[in-house]
Amino acid sequence: MKEKGLLIVLSGPSGVGKGTVRKAIFSQEDTEFEYSISMTTRKPREGEVDGVDYFFKTREEFEELITQGRLLEYAEFVGNYYGTPVDYVRETLDSGKDVFLEIEVQGAQQVREKFPEGLFIFLAPPSLSELQNRLVTRGTETNDIIKGRMDTARKEIEMMNLYDFIVENDTVENACHKIKSIVQAEHCRRERVQQRYLNMLEVE
Amino acid sequence: MKEKGLLIVLSGPSGVGKGTVRKAIFSQEDTEFEYSISMTTRKPREGEVDGVDYFFKTREEFEELITQGRLLEYAEFVGNYYGTPVDYVRETLDSGKDVFLEIEVQGAQQVREKFPEGLFIFLAPPSLSELQNRLVTRGTETNDIIKGRMDTARKEIEMMNLYDFIVENDTVENACHKIKSIVQAEHCRRERVQQRYLNMLEVE
Repeated sequence: MKEKGLLIVLSGPSGVGKGTVRKAIFSQEDTEFEYSISMTTRKPREGEVDGVDYFFKTREEFEELITQGRLLEYAEFVGNYYGTPVDYVRETLDSGKDVFLEIEVQGAQQVREKFPEGLFIFLAPPSLSELQNRLVTRGTETNDIIKGRMDTARKEIEMMNLYDFIVENDTVENACHKIKSIVQAEHCRRERVQQRYLNMLEVE
Repeated sequence: MKEKGLLIVLSGPSGVGKGTVRKAIFSQEDTEFEYSISMTTRKPREGEVDGVDYFFKTREEFEELITQGRLLEYAEFVGNYYGTPVDYVRETLDSGKDVFLEIEVQGAQQVREKFPEGLFIFLAPPSLSELQNRLVTRGTETNDIIKGRMDTARKEIEMMNLYDFIVENDTVENACHKIKSIVQAEHCRRERVQQRYLNMLEVE
């Protein structure tokens, strides 16, 4: 029995830099996981290539896939659908390769329900770490501003509940390194490796 | 409240190369964890320095520490005691630094009982991965030799039960890299990071 790949899900609040980190990871030569390209109904922007940046579909095509249950997750933003085709993900995992998704938090929630065993990584804004400073060191901010910041921070911290790991996007380089460490560590988990050895012992 | 450091325990069957891997890790400049020096009653070998390679103690001193419960783990090999002083480990963890132990499997078992939350890493012999080949490809070995190999392998695989992670010592460089990834990933665990953020919100 072939060992299945890992499903790696990178998500986080909008604007945190998920796309930048994902592109940096896949620009590194030693990256061994496969990027699952999203599907969308929005028009290609200049320079975007079908099957590279996105799979571009019509609204009808997209809704047909929803009906057929062939999307791992999807959502509508500003009048356009975005989603992850499930076939590619399943086939790649079954072939033993790791699959990497970079999606919005709503999508991550849908994926968690279908793949609870996935590796869910939350990309956190570096502003969270500076929170304490920003809240207390200046005497100049109004209570409303401070309260607003605390509310935002509380919401972001609450979003993390779904995730296994938190990576702060302090620099793209650090974030990439941490994400790769998390994946490598997961491949060293005892249950996984021990089972591989046990399978080897079951020779004819 | 200061966040505690991680206790990292590297162990594995004797002869697997634990000492070599440990020395390689601590020769790297970016290693940020502290090595817990073992205590022993054996005589220093040429070039060994007290407080660097080991803390060298008399039998009486060592037994006094056992009685006082000041050893995290200890064992006797060929007439000499070897052990880990507990005070250093606790103080370093409390100061927020990670502590690294490199010990025998019997010792690891004792540590697991006292620090179940530690990060237990088993260094596996690369021969395990070649098992299948070694068992079946040659027609030249007697059944006794094959049986012997399978028994050894089964025992080594069983030893792994106690551990969280398995790292194969295929090359010292790979093993070091994986161990460091495991530690870095652990620092990104959601519970740990989320709590740190929540603590920050509790400002005066």
